[in-house]
Amino acid sequence: MKKNFWIFKKNQWFFEEEIPFDDYSEIVIGIKVKRRLYSGKSPYQKIEFFDTYSFGRILVLDGILQTSEKDEFTYHEMLCQIPMFYHPNPKKVLIIGGGDGGALEEILKHPIKKVWMVEIDKRVIQYCKKYLSSISKRAFEDKRAEVIIGDGKKFIKKYKNFFDLIILDLSDPLGPAKDLISLKFYKDVKMALKEKGVVSIQSGSLTCQPKLVAIIYKRMRKIFPHVKVHRAVIPSYQAGDYSFTVASKLNLDYSLAAKKKLEKRFKKLNLNLQYWSPEIHFSSAILPKYLKDEVER
Amino acid sequence: MKKNFWIFKKNQWFFEEEIPFDDYSEIVIGIKVKRRLYSGKSPYQKIEFFDTYSFGRILVLDGILQTSEKDEFTYHEMLCQIPMFYHPNPKKVLIIGGGDGGALEEILKHPIKKVWMVEIDKRVIQYCKKYLSSISKRAFEDKRAEVIIGDGKKFIKKYKNFFDLIILDLSDPLGPAKDLISLKFYKDVKMALKEKGVVSIQSGSLTCQPKLVAIIYKRMRKIFPHVKVHRAVIPSYQAGDYSFTVASKLNLDYSLAAKKKLEKRFKKLNLNLQYWSPEIHFSSAILPKYLKDEVER
Repeated sequence: MKKNFWIFKKNQWFFEEEIPFDDYSEIVIGIKVKRRLYSGKSPYQKIEFFDTYSFGRILVLDGILQTSEKDEFTYHEMLCQIPMFYHPNPKKVLIIGGGDGGALEEILKHPIKKVWMVEIDKRVIQYCKKYLSSISKRAFEDKRAEVIIGDGKKFIKKYKNFFDLIILDLSDPLGPAKDLISLKFYKDVKMALKEKGVVSIQSGSLTCQPKLVAIIYKRMRKIFPHVKVHRAVIPSYQAGDYSFTVASKLNLDYSLAAKKKLEKRFKKLNLNLQYWSPEIHFSSAILPKYLKDEVER
Repeated sequence: MKKNFWIFKKNQWFFEEEIPFDDYSEIVIGIKVKRRLYSGKSPYQKIEFFDTYSFGRILVLDGILQTSEKDEFTYHEMLCQIPMFYHPNPKKVLIIGGGDGGALEEILKHPIKKVWMVEIDKRVIQYCKKYLSSISKRAFEDKRAEVIIGDGKKFIKKYKNFFDLIILDLSDPLGPAKDLISLKFYKDVKMALKEKGVVSIQSGSLTCQPKLVAIIYKRMRKIFPHVKVHRAVIPSYQAGDYSFTVASKLNLDYSLAAKKKLEKRFKKLNLNLQYWSPEIHFSSAILPKYLKDEVER
């Protein structure tokens, strides 16, 4: 196939490289490119930006599409608003990864005290500010945000019982993120969280990577008493139902009372959202039987 | 692009032809084929069957994938179980289209009296029985099923206040199904339904064809007081959130009481389903804000 890929590439199509845990490796998906904006190598990974017809600008790390201008809101709202609303009153938030600044921007919509963002690859931030600034907007300039260039694995060990929320906005478990789905790391995450703390993870595609979703779910379940998988379609991923796993020491409340409380809080905050809503918060946690079986078996 | 398509095709990849109302025409999706099982032309359309690596056998009409062995259950359960459970006690059911027999099989899981299936293209039925028999199972042999080869548009005009349920299991509005999204046809559908009757339509991809979903929704709303769009991911379609629109003269009940009643009925029936569940019935009707705006604006 490599030769044909090349023919497509010459004609300005972007094809993803092999994706880990992919059940659908016998499918090819090509996105037509207007032009390549940047291509380079950092000490951690290959970084590319393309301008595409269907999704606007996209960020590609090690050959895998990470985010697009057109639908980043779905990814970032699901990754961030779900844990923000499971927690009754989040004030101190940690993001690991998230170099494009989309998660940072999402968290800063709330009246939080401070958000730390630990990204290992300073060049991702640097070039996202240049080529994908519509995603982070003015988040990097917010006084409540502190950006640390460093290893999230090491950073988190310094904190005990400190964060209300931890967001793991990581690429697939290859390259720089490969140790960040380990049981050991998840234990450190738990230690760094307060009693009511919530962790949120982008956990792969339920449709294409159910084994990866199941691994993350099972490891979380070993450490946290309450774990829930939410789902959403992110069109640029071309990966069916994508998953976001949240976990907490406290109950993730699905009662009618919790629903009413959440709706009230949402109205008061007056956030400008395009995907997440109080109804989506709860309905996105309902998995069809065959996927539930696959993840929780 | 045609030349490159051809290179792929020679290497046994299936690429879809142009899809109507497609917002994502600058994307190509290829499914790797083990072998082509059949290719021929009926008076209505081109009919092909492929055996694929990712989805098992697939049916392709006029170059567009219709159904696959691997995930047909999602499509057929969402298309049929949703209206079956909105209706309190369906006895007489009409399917228009549905030549693969998957909708027929789904309806026959219930204690109905009779189901009529009107398919315009007898060759689709003939070859689906041969190459995709795992989808219909023994449905075509069931004594409660009557298969009519004919034009659904003409057939439906003969019935007034007769069916409890009408299922429109149609291909995209090109070729033989092109008149079956007209207001005129929908009016005939309403006339043929009883007072508590429900109609269910596969209404295209919310992600890729939001304009088509909106057209169907708006036409339905002109005729029926109660219309609801449900969604599900059908992996072989590679089309994100796919939609199923249901409409009724009576209220589509989402109350807590309705939920409890539905759960009770579901338990009693002891159906063997892989996607639909009472929880999915309700949660699948919750659309994210940006799609709700697009469809209902």
